[in-house]
Amino acid sequence: MPLGEEKNGKCDGSIYVNNPHLDSMTDDILYHFNLGTSTHDLPKMFGDVKFVCVGGSPWRMKSFTEYIAKELGLVDPNAEYPNICAGTDRYAMYKVGPVLSVSHGMGIPSISIMLHELIKLLYHARCTDVTVVRIGTSGGIGLKPGTVVVTKQSVDSLFQPHLEQTILGKPVVRSTELDKELAEELLQCGKELGEFEIIIGNTMCTLDFYEGQARLDGAFCSYSEEDKQNYLAEAYAAGVRNIEMESSVFAAMCKLSNLRAAVVCVTLLDRQKGDQLTSSHEVLNNYQQRPQALVGHYIKKKLNISKKS
Amino acid sequence: MPLGEEKNGKCDGSIYVNNPHLDSMTDDILYHFNLGTSTHDLPKMFGDVKFVCVGGSPWRMKSFTEYIAKELGLVDPNAEYPNICAGTDRYAMYKVGPVLSVSHGMGIPSISIMLHELIKLLYHARCTDVTVVRIGTSGGIGLKPGTVVVTKQSVDSLFQPHLEQTILGKPVVRSTELDKELAEELLQCGKELGEFEIIIGNTMCTLDFYEGQARLDGAFCSYSEEDKQNYLAEAYAAGVRNIEMESSVFAAMCKLSNLRAAVVCVTLLDRQKGDQLTSSHEVLNNYQQRPQALVGHYIKKKLNISKKS
Repeated sequence: MPLGEEKNGKCDGSIYVNNPHLDSMTDDILYHFNLGTSTHDLPKMFGDVKFVCVGGSPWRMKSFTEYIAKELGLVDPNAEYPNICAGTDRYAMYKVGPVLSVSHGMGIPSISIMLHELIKLLYHARCTDVTVVRIGTSGGIGLKPGTVVVTKQSVDSLFQPHLEQTILGKPVVRSTELDKELAEELLQCGKELGEFEIIIGNTMCTLDFYEGQARLDGAFCSYSEEDKQNYLAEAYAAGVRNIEMESSVFAAMCKLSNLRAAVVCVTLLDRQKGDQLTSSHEVLNNYQQRPQALVGHYIKKKLNISKKS
Repeated sequence: MPLGEEKNGKCDGSIYVNNPHLDSMTDDILYHFNLGTSTHDLPKMFGDVKFVCVGGSPWRMKSFTEYIAKELGLVDPNAEYPNICAGTDRYAMYKVGPVLSVSHGMGIPSISIMLHELIKLLYHARCTDVTVVRIGTSGGIGLKPGTVVVTKQSVDSLFQPHLEQTILGKPVVRSTELDKELAEELLQCGKELGEFEIIIGNTMCTLDFYEGQARLDGAFCSYSEEDKQNYLAEAYAAGVRNIEMESSVFAAMCKLSNLRAAVVCVTLLDRQKGDQLTSSHEVLNNYQQRPQALVGHYIKKKLNISKKS
């Protein structure tokens, strides 16, 4: 199969690994999770997973697990939620009922390692019909801080909806298309909650937080405030409403693996008005709870619907 | 100043920020460190820093601090080494005497955020003559696992010694040259220690651990074992002896900031013989201590020399 032409979009709900070599491996070590097929019973541990939430910070993913346990009525007052990846400090992973919560660090390479291993984990565990949502933070463009953006398309720094990767030294371009129906459902959930502003918009995914996002406050900056504002205005005109650092490879890898995927990020500031995060710790913390409240509402709704049917 | 033409290489030992906007800021919040110029006395906290060691894992950087405290005779039996960035889980930072130790997560974007804030921190703290060493892990090519590689040149996936970044949607190419003298000094230290094999070689820096490094065991793989071996052989012919995910931006940013910089990574496996990390936890742990032993020896030597002179 030539590079760049990968199969995707199977309809049976199973997780799809695009790798013929995996079948001939007697053991698969998921090194950065400190898990493996010969050391762990992955179907038993993870076979019932239907929702995976991922986010940059290990603390936030632990707090999401505690929150979702409460929301789903699965709280055992004596229960601690152990970090399933306790043997490593690369990622943190928690599980409560059908919901898995995994941290991914910052940036495309960091989330890409996690997703390779997560996709193999779900595949080895024989999970089906899995929905994955990235809950994160971002800089907004032309939005009131605290607004939640559900990503329509993840675009690169030229506002194109694809990701260029390098494989064996050659460029491979992958689509960053996300599940439209899921994005609409999440928007609807936000409106039902009515606790914060929520919109659908394009999300720009960059390789750098400072120069890559036209910030004026990094260690290096060779452009003017006007150059910055022009670039952000171009992005806005291309439908970009927020900027973060993981959505493109997240969208591309989930699409290749037959995972329904969405990106929900809160905006911590309006980049047209500044670069530094000057809001108080308390305000920023409150903002960061919004994506998890949204996804909590969505999961509850989905589980109720499936119970009724 | 046009993009891509940045000043560098000042001779007075001071840290150089290439950003005229910083001078007009009344406060600088180093968000991902949870530090700032108006909340912390950075010159008092960090003014004496002469060596900075950075590595992916927070645990490893804490363990490096404990190790270096012992080596430098700075151990206070009652002392804990508090995480200076305790208010955030993005990075961990420890300090003992003139040695600062900071984690950077995995991949170019993650280390790039850390370096922007580290360079500003050293600048605000008015540090001079600072040496920065990345101590990490890597995959080797044609080397016995456990061999330590001191990077001669950090090259990209086409084996070119530069890093292409995107700023305001336009490509900017930066040199990834490292300090040759420092690399030779570190090689010499390794030979003096005589505890493990050590070489100087080129290091390939990739954006992905699986497909980006020609692994056959990721969630996706559309090439054959032969394609992989050919690519690794090409890399070897270009002088590449190990592969990791942070050296290029580390080299580029340190060069722009007038920081003497080196990359010292241990190889955990020989990629021509496999992809998975099958060595025992104990063996891998032992390997990971080698770069820190090397840098410990180097720092001790430097401090003794400066005491004698």
